[in-house]
Amino acid sequence: MSVMTEASTGTGAASGGTRCPVPTYEGDFVLSEHLLLECGRALAGVTLHYAVYGRLNAARDNAVLVCHALTGSALVGSWWPEIFAPGAVLSLEHDFVICINLLGSCYGSTGPGSVDPETGEVYGPDFPLVSVQDNVRAQARLLDSLGIKRLRLALGGSLGGMQALEWTILYPERVERAAIIGVAPLSAMGLALNHLQRLAIEHDPEWAGGRYLPQRPPRKGLALARQIGMISYKSAPLFDERFGRKPNRNGEDPWGLDDQGGGLIGGRFDIAGYLDHQGERFIDRFDANAYLAIMRTMDTWDPQRGYSSASEAFSRIRARLSFVGISTDWLFPPGEVRSFAEAIRAAGVQADYREMTSDHGHDAFLAEQAELVRLLR
Amino acid sequence: MSVMTEASTGTGAASGGTRCPVPTYEGDFVLSEHLLLECGRALAGVTLHYAVYGRLNAARDNAVLVCHALTGSALVGSWWPEIFAPGAVLSLEHDFVICINLLGSCYGSTGPGSVDPETGEVYGPDFPLVSVQDNVRAQARLLDSLGIKRLRLALGGSLGGMQALEWTILYPERVERAAIIGVAPLSAMGLALNHLQRLAIEHDPEWAGGRYLPQRPPRKGLALARQIGMISYKSAPLFDERFGRKPNRNGEDPWGLDDQGGGLIGGRFDIAGYLDHQGERFIDRFDANAYLAIMRTMDTWDPQRGYSSASEAFSRIRARLSFVGISTDWLFPPGEVRSFAEAIRAAGVQADYREMTSDHGHDAFLAEQAELVRLLR
Repeated sequence: MSVMTEASTGTGAASGGTRCPVPTYEGDFVLSEHLLLECGRALAGVTLHYAVYGRLNAARDNAVLVCHALTGSALVGSWWPEIFAPGAVLSLEHDFVICINLLGSCYGSTGPGSVDPETGEVYGPDFPLVSVQDNVRAQARLLDSLGIKRLRLALGGSLGGMQALEWTILYPERVERAAIIGVAPLSAMGLALNHLQRLAIEHDPEWAGGRYLPQRPPRKGLALARQIGMISYKSAPLFDERFGRKPNRNGEDPWGLDDQGGGLIGGRFDIAGYLDHQGERFIDRFDANAYLAIMRTMDTWDPQRGYSSASEAFSRIRARLSFVGISTDWLFPPGEVRSFAEAIRAAGVQADYREMTSDHGHDAFLAEQAELVRLLR
Repeated sequence: MSVMTEASTGTGAASGGTRCPVPTYEGDFVLSEHLLLECGRALAGVTLHYAVYGRLNAARDNAVLVCHALTGSALVGSWWPEIFAPGAVLSLEHDFVICINLLGSCYGSTGPGSVDPETGEVYGPDFPLVSVQDNVRAQARLLDSLGIKRLRLALGGSLGGMQALEWTILYPERVERAAIIGVAPLSAMGLALNHLQRLAIEHDPEWAGGRYLPQRPPRKGLALARQIGMISYKSAPLFDERFGRKPNRNGEDPWGLDDQGGGLIGGRFDIAGYLDHQGERFIDRFDANAYLAIMRTMDTWDPQRGYSSASEAFSRIRARLSFVGISTDWLFPPGEVRSFAEAIRAAGVQADYREMTSDHGHDAFLAEQAELVRLLR
């Protein structure tokens, strides 16, 4: 099965035909203590919004943590339904699946749009850098509160994979297995792409240094940011196959006289119409400051940071790891995922590498779930 | 020799050590008749700014046409000096080299910043689509005026290669050889990248629908456009080698407290500092409307357009062709250049394919000229 959703690292409708599992519980957990952040600041009254699927057994040893990507939500049943299909990766009968919204997001956990209980004001642009490690430490407190000592499995794609791996380093005794999909520390090209997205938002006068009113957000800047992101989530072969050099399906003429914004602009090609549509969809579902916050979370992830060497960091891991690269992923090229897996194996960790063959690029872990399930099973 | 210039498809200082040839003449040619454009409009008083190197011989059979890329100029001696090195591709002693600034540009030929003689007003956003074919037809009139019936060689990289090939289709009897470097019709990914650059400029409030004052141009939008372009001119391996995940060399701290624009932005990585610098350099040398005009020239190039089939278009060619792909080029991937060469060969044309091995991506034809010379010689 193959779909072309806006899913890319995100939230979205289920792909054709698969029924989306409904959470057994969806709610908030509030940390009782400040969350001390790697950057040196502390967040008070941190809320984690989360969803669970299935039931925790008496031994509390059937928990699985799914970590979401950049613009995803806690509702993993909605954006990764095929992982729950009978005989797939997760079982609603046997597993207790938990997915926790990232800090910085606009989908329920504390983020730039939240009120800082210590000042009574919305964080806005003063929301601090919350690292992947900070997220994992907060998530651990939520699991503590549920009496879950150990995860049968932690898994995620993209930024979700960063969290899953960070779990195995930070809490070696708490994770039995982890699946890390389409990810390695962000390369210079990945950092470049995030930087350009950041600029697109910053340049929008409506952004107002991050102090925009909710009813007047930087829509153009956020849409352009998303479009820059989209080209890195998809692949050139997919774009060629789907859009090629065709004129936009609404009938615009790229070669024609200047009916669209003067002779300098012209009618759009189909790929341009597609990207514009993706930008439009995105600004209706996501917040610009949240996007900036989570991009920074992604940019700054370096699992060796704070350790004297890669070996010191990775040799902490006790979990069995599976890495998945995606053949046409150019944001996290399969060669980089493979090398990353090898570096971790060199530290004495059990880590295998598998590769998805897909034209969907980075997005394949969301767009071609059946193939992913086949690899992970 | 390898340099990291802002050259990418453009104008720039010579790379280390090579002396830049000085033109024997640099000036303007004004077409006596209207230039009828493919889009249906006509341009009056069209000016072509051009530079020549070396001397035309008595038989007028030693002419070589160099076609420049997106933001290049007629001063080929300045941006492609190694092509002129002793024993390289061109000889100042034996060749008469001519390079003509593209229509739409801001480097001397008629463009959006020019005054339309029929209205007395600056074209601005009303400057029409001038296709690659339109450019070639205008260039042919300039060569007519010089009494040049036939080119020993036409060559160019990127958009320059589009022109060189178009010459061989439109005027089969006038070109003996052509070298087409790092180019094929723009793919969907290429169209996407140009679309996003266009949006970056359009979103800048200073752009004002293209009617900005020269002293108040859309600097931020043009800089961002250039930065989006830059990531496609370079390659991920080059970025990793040069910048990796290092913090910006000016001492900014991507992990640190929020000294730069709030906690959502943070200190830059080195790649971000580099891209910002490239954006800054570019806005001092190029005009936003000219950039839009020439991107449209590039987008719309399809050598089969106006013919009933690829075969009908390509079988017109009499020149011997050499195509050059660049191993790490992801704007015009080497596989696409090779397939394009094969499609042309299938029409009965003499066309070979050669590949540059370079980490420089699309920019390699400017950044690694010695290697290009070795391949073309």
